[in-house]
Amino acid sequence: MSDDEAILAANAAYYRAFSAGDFATMSRIWADDGVSCVHPGWMPLVGRDAVIDSYRNILTSPSRVRIAHRDDSAIVTGDEGRVVCIEIVENTALLAATNVYRRVDGAWRMVHHQASPIAMPVEESEPPRRGQRLN
Amino acid sequence: MSDDEAILAANAAYYRAFSAGDFATMSRIWADDGVSCVHPGWMPLVGRDAVIDSYRNILTSPSRVRIAHRDDSAIVTGDEGRVVCIEIVENTALLAATNVYRRVDGAWRMVHHQASPIAMPVEESEPPRRGQRLN
Repeated sequence: MSDDEAILAANAAYYRAFSAGDFATMSRIWADDGVSCVHPGWMPLVGRDAVIDSYRNILTSPSRVRIAHRDDSAIVTGDEGRVVCIEIVENTALLAATNVYRRVDGAWRMVHHQASPIAMPVEESEPPRRGQRLN
Repeated sequence: MSDDEAILAANAAYYRAFSAGDFATMSRIWADDGVSCVHPGWMPLVGRDAVIDSYRNILTSPSRVRIAHRDDSAIVTGDEGRVVCIEIVENTALLAATNVYRRVDGAWRMVHHQASPIAMPVEESEPPRRGQRLN
């Protein structure tokens, strides 16, 4: 399995654990240190305790949502890599997500997650045009 | 200068270039390859050409905004690191930002940027509570 295939498999495992509400697996997916996370609409969380607590709350919540992912792109350099993808929440809302991984003892462990709302229908998306305010 | 200090200095340089509309510096800040970016509300951009084009458009736009940053946290592992921080856009809107850097020939070059709106006033923010839907 190539590095790209391995990190894409790790990314798929993250979404499987999320959608299954499998907190034990999610806890193992996240690395032991150097982690951070920005949930949609939230301030950044820094450190494993804060991040893992947030996932415990989310995955055990009765209002937990199901998230599909698509258009995964892998970018790997040595033992660090990330996957950018589109999240589809409950078949409706679209988020742009970045999942950063570090290879630890041969396994790609998550060190950062950020998901942010996409403000336009995906079908109409295109690169930013001159004069358009983005940031 | 420690690794943390160096990556925080790189992060400050990014926001200086952004607020000054200095595209030449911004182009040098970004690494030569393996880059990606999620501007607020946008689909992910992958690859240097797409990312640099987006910054050219943003930084040369008459509606370019000024961005301050605060609460920078550095997380460095070897030659990879990131800074999570709060962006303050035109003294009003708050964004949660992640800036990922890779050390190339001793310099911290940006390989990923993502900024996403914070849905609550910073003063009232707190870790997610049990049962609260986040993602």
